[in-house]
Amino acid sequence: MPNKTMDVTGIGNAIVDVISRTDDAFLADNEIEKGAMNLVDADRSSHIYGRMGPGIEMSGGSAANTIVGLAGFGGVGAFIGKVRDDPFGKVFRHDITAAGVRFDTANSTSGPPTASCLVLVTPDAQRSMNTHLGACVDLGPEDVDEDLIKASKVIYLEGYLWDPPRAKEAFLKAAAIAHASDGLVSLSLSDPFCVGRHRDEFRELVERHVDILFANEDEIISLYETSDFDAALQAVRGHCKTAALTRGAKGSVVLSDGEVHILDAEKADRVVDTTGAGDLYAAGFLHGFTRSEDPARCGRLGGIAAAEIISHFGARPETDLKALAKTVLG
Amino acid sequence: MPNKTMDVTGIGNAIVDVISRTDDAFLADNEIEKGAMNLVDADRSSHIYGRMGPGIEMSGGSAANTIVGLAGFGGVGAFIGKVRDDPFGKVFRHDITAAGVRFDTANSTSGPPTASCLVLVTPDAQRSMNTHLGACVDLGPEDVDEDLIKASKVIYLEGYLWDPPRAKEAFLKAAAIAHASDGLVSLSLSDPFCVGRHRDEFRELVERHVDILFANEDEIISLYETSDFDAALQAVRGHCKTAALTRGAKGSVVLSDGEVHILDAEKADRVVDTTGAGDLYAAGFLHGFTRSEDPARCGRLGGIAAAEIISHFGARPETDLKALAKTVLG
Repeated sequence: MPNKTMDVTGIGNAIVDVISRTDDAFLADNEIEKGAMNLVDADRSSHIYGRMGPGIEMSGGSAANTIVGLAGFGGVGAFIGKVRDDPFGKVFRHDITAAGVRFDTANSTSGPPTASCLVLVTPDAQRSMNTHLGACVDLGPEDVDEDLIKASKVIYLEGYLWDPPRAKEAFLKAAAIAHASDGLVSLSLSDPFCVGRHRDEFRELVERHVDILFANEDEIISLYETSDFDAALQAVRGHCKTAALTRGAKGSVVLSDGEVHILDAEKADRVVDTTGAGDLYAAGFLHGFTRSEDPARCGRLGGIAAAEIISHFGARPETDLKALAKTVLG
Repeated sequence: MPNKTMDVTGIGNAIVDVISRTDDAFLADNEIEKGAMNLVDADRSSHIYGRMGPGIEMSGGSAANTIVGLAGFGGVGAFIGKVRDDPFGKVFRHDITAAGVRFDTANSTSGPPTASCLVLVTPDAQRSMNTHLGACVDLGPEDVDEDLIKASKVIYLEGYLWDPPRAKEAFLKAAAIAHASDGLVSLSLSDPFCVGRHRDEFRELVERHVDILFANEDEIISLYETSDFDAALQAVRGHCKTAALTRGAKGSVVLSDGEVHILDAEKADRVVDTTGAGDLYAAGFLHGFTRSEDPARCGRLGGIAAAEIISHFGARPETDLKALAKTVLG
């Protein structure tokens, strides 16, 4: 690892989650794609909110969850994302800062409100998300702090950034700066439907710009349009130096410099809400990676963080991750 | 019970809670009275928020929690309280309405924001609250819907209503309407410090206006300035037709028409956060009471609701209370 002051800087959509329990009938009645991140406009968001049950508000956002998790492990992290100068923007900024993450991106002062995601959790612990991107559409390359990227060992980008119009320009600018300054670029594919929306661009990205790829089984199959996981695994080999592919209860597979490490899932006390499982896997993995741990240990750190996050509602850790890490790192 | 369409109408402060874990050192450093409801102004609220850890936002408010619990048991409830036309006001209104509670009080459209309570939970599951009353100061007698009160078997009032300037006028108006229309008046003393602030008025209330009194051990001792619980118990006898006095892990004592019922605490799976324990005890008790259950059963319903609420963060139930009630009611 190069000698830099920042372990990981994440760029992503800055979102406050509204989490509520529901059932499959509600999803069907309201035509919400189960298990997916559904993009919704302000009217549709209000419509769903008006019909859904009581909620709990918690800061979220995929890359933001990852960086908060990294900080929870003791890593040094920063986040770039856009909120508005409104009450939920204040909540997002408070929570990520209070978690020890550097967050300097200026608020937007006009336009849509801070992004929200209505997270509907069914009794099978699956989450179905309805995201109103709000102020995230104002994130652009002007928000990328060049010095911060230069100081970062790894930058971490969520595939969801391809949904708002100008965030990918921020992403590509950050990737170019990182590579020009001996940093690495990591990407999470985010969601199989998101991959479907941006498949060609994502393939080009993975082949040309990405050093560390995070994806789950559905996402990597969607990216390469293969029939099964093994075929997708073969397709990704050679494109990225490192790929960490998660398979839910089946654990994860880490590809690293041509080696394949197959890891069992870490045991979860209970499975309540799978929101953030991928985000926290990436947090643990990147924490290990930026400490130069071997790939299997990186994957195990990812697994324990994912097991923690699915044991409760919300995508921000509730347990001392440093203590959990000791079970892997000693 | 008179034949009315509404079981219980609650009047209280309409508050969104911001719940965060902390430790005793943080409380001491910031001069926060442990276990109490501390009233704070906007500056002090911002100061504490700026220093505390990441939070979870959830609708709260003592009487509001009680009425949501009552609705969870299958009771018919309404709430009167004041929020502003701002994002947290929208959250409060959504959550209580989505829980099946009627909530018709108009928003304030100017003045302070929707009330918030910074709830700091220590590892011993004790909660220390920092309430900025915000828009609650605008609640007044004009917000009491006479027809709603007339239609209610019981009205439920929180002692915290004595803190904002005009809410007690709303309280007294509602109590007079209830008594004139064959309804009953119940009061929760809320907090020993709140009792200390308003002792003389509370004593007069209990003696002249209250049919059903809810208090915990500290509150009833503070009300009568006695040295112990037994002396307080003797002091309250004869003043109210019914009194339900909670004692935490020691269970509760129900006084009803001169009889004394001593009830063990219901077993909690775990004790995470005691926020709302008294509110939910009142919910279960009033649900039984408005169904004309005997006093011991009312107390047991209170106990199971309190046990549910302390097993997780936040003061709104996460479990099907109707199913839990079957263990008592069959």
